[in-house]
Amino acid sequence: MMVHLNGVLMAAADARIDPADRGLTLGDGLFESLRARDGEILRLDAHLARLRAGAAVIGLPLPMSDEALGDSLRETLRGNDIDDGVLRLTVTRGPAGRGLLPPASSHPTILVTAAAQGGQPPGPVAAVIAATTRRNEYSPLSRCKTINYLDNILARREADERGADEALMLNTAGRLAETTIANLFLVIGGDLVTPPVADGALPGVMRADVIALAGAGERPLAPEDLARASEAFVTNSLGIRPLVSVDRAPIGDGRPGAVTAKVAAIVD
Amino acid sequence: MMVHLNGVLMAAADARIDPADRGLTLGDGLFESLRARDGEILRLDAHLARLRAGAAVIGLPLPMSDEALGDSLRETLRGNDIDDGVLRLTVTRGPAGRGLLPPASSHPTILVTAAAQGGQPPGPVAAVIAATTRRNEYSPLSRCKTINYLDNILARREADERGADEALMLNTAGRLAETTIANLFLVIGGDLVTPPVADGALPGVMRADVIALAGAGERPLAPEDLARASEAFVTNSLGIRPLVSVDRAPIGDGRPGAVTAKVAAIVD
Repeated sequence: MMVHLNGVLMAAADARIDPADRGLTLGDGLFESLRARDGEILRLDAHLARLRAGAAVIGLPLPMSDEALGDSLRETLRGNDIDDGVLRLTVTRGPAGRGLLPPASSHPTILVTAAAQGGQPPGPVAAVIAATTRRNEYSPLSRCKTINYLDNILARREADERGADEALMLNTAGRLAETTIANLFLVIGGDLVTPPVADGALPGVMRADVIALAGAGERPLAPEDLARASEAFVTNSLGIRPLVSVDRAPIGDGRPGAVTAKVAAIVD
Repeated sequence: MMVHLNGVLMAAADARIDPADRGLTLGDGLFESLRARDGEILRLDAHLARLRAGAAVIGLPLPMSDEALGDSLRETLRGNDIDDGVLRLTVTRGPAGRGLLPPASSHPTILVTAAAQGGQPPGPVAAVIAATTRRNEYSPLSRCKTINYLDNILARREADERGADEALMLNTAGRLAETTIANLFLVIGGDLVTPPVADGALPGVMRADVIALAGAGERPLAPEDLARASEAFVTNSLGIRPLVSVDRAPIGDGRPGAVTAKVAAIVD
């Protein structure tokens, strides 16, 4: 397997992350997961725009141009002979000494890895509502794709322990925010709706497409709204999956719905 | 500089973290900062107990015994010829493929680094109340020392931009939780009080000593309580520092207080 580290394509076994990297010691970094299909990277500009927005929030200087980042991604795809799969672009603040305050001059770590296929089974999702933890809509990080994923890992572990595929995460006010790796969409009274970013939903790249191209609207949603939904689905950069049950209660008739199929045909 | 990685003492330059380490990719890990004085590690048992409590919360198997972890810490001190300084013990879930769910069998990364001196200037602290972000008391991670420190980094950056040394972090209910790297204590009406863990305060090892040995009590605290305090201080494993102002308003007479000195003499 080949990875791209700080501008150089190399064997993964040769790639070394410094133990002092702030990504490792403090979670001081961001990432993007990008889908590749037929050798082409989907929604690359939107992913890089979100990465730069996150970098602005955490004050992380990103010295590489979008063109250079795109080249790194494409070289990693080609270096692994992958046409269809998923790329991951990770950017951290790089190695530093002790202390939370970033050093005046930092040298970010820029890492690209690739895997064949989507890594996501295409089937429908049975979810639970995570009881373990909640998403913090008071933090601007809820709007950035940071490497601080431990709350999501807790929720995902809970889903597994409860025999489900995925967990819905509530925000601190008890409203629906998203799943551990995807945005949530419900069809209620014929309207396609999704939790607003202000409620702790990550501004997903696919989510933006569903809003723009399929006419979905943002609306605060409570767990009780799940019972009112005729169908539901979840989205991330890898695609769209029907959500057919939550806490063992079926959504609508418990089968993938027609709106879901229509939206998938529009954006996927 | 020498570090201890997975049981082996080696030059830091030879230590390699795998780019697939979940500590780096997902913040899936924990750490402890321990003070060494005169070649002895302070409060070692309490630190290892907290580490194991955190590992239980996130479901991270820790195959090394406390004795072996203690040996790694002591060897790192000696390997760097440090008598007085700070050790950091980081444990991550180790390398893994894609996906949030931890693999059935994981091999944790166990890293020990050391630095001479405390890294913390002994002077009094001028703080601000962070406006950027809040601490999520709804997450069990608020009670664990995880490597997800990006919210704290945001608050620390804000403090720096506002000309302060440190930031107090509020929880989502607007109550005082802690600072970005320390617990908070106030003296109000002669009582020594600190925010409860349920309000988002990390259960600090030094905090526990101040409660047990200096008779401090846990009490929910609001920002308005700062104006009622006759003095204040912050604590972490490296020691106790007076907190003399918040948002440019002095605490008490704006000078380090007698209770602070007394508590420092008891626990430090």
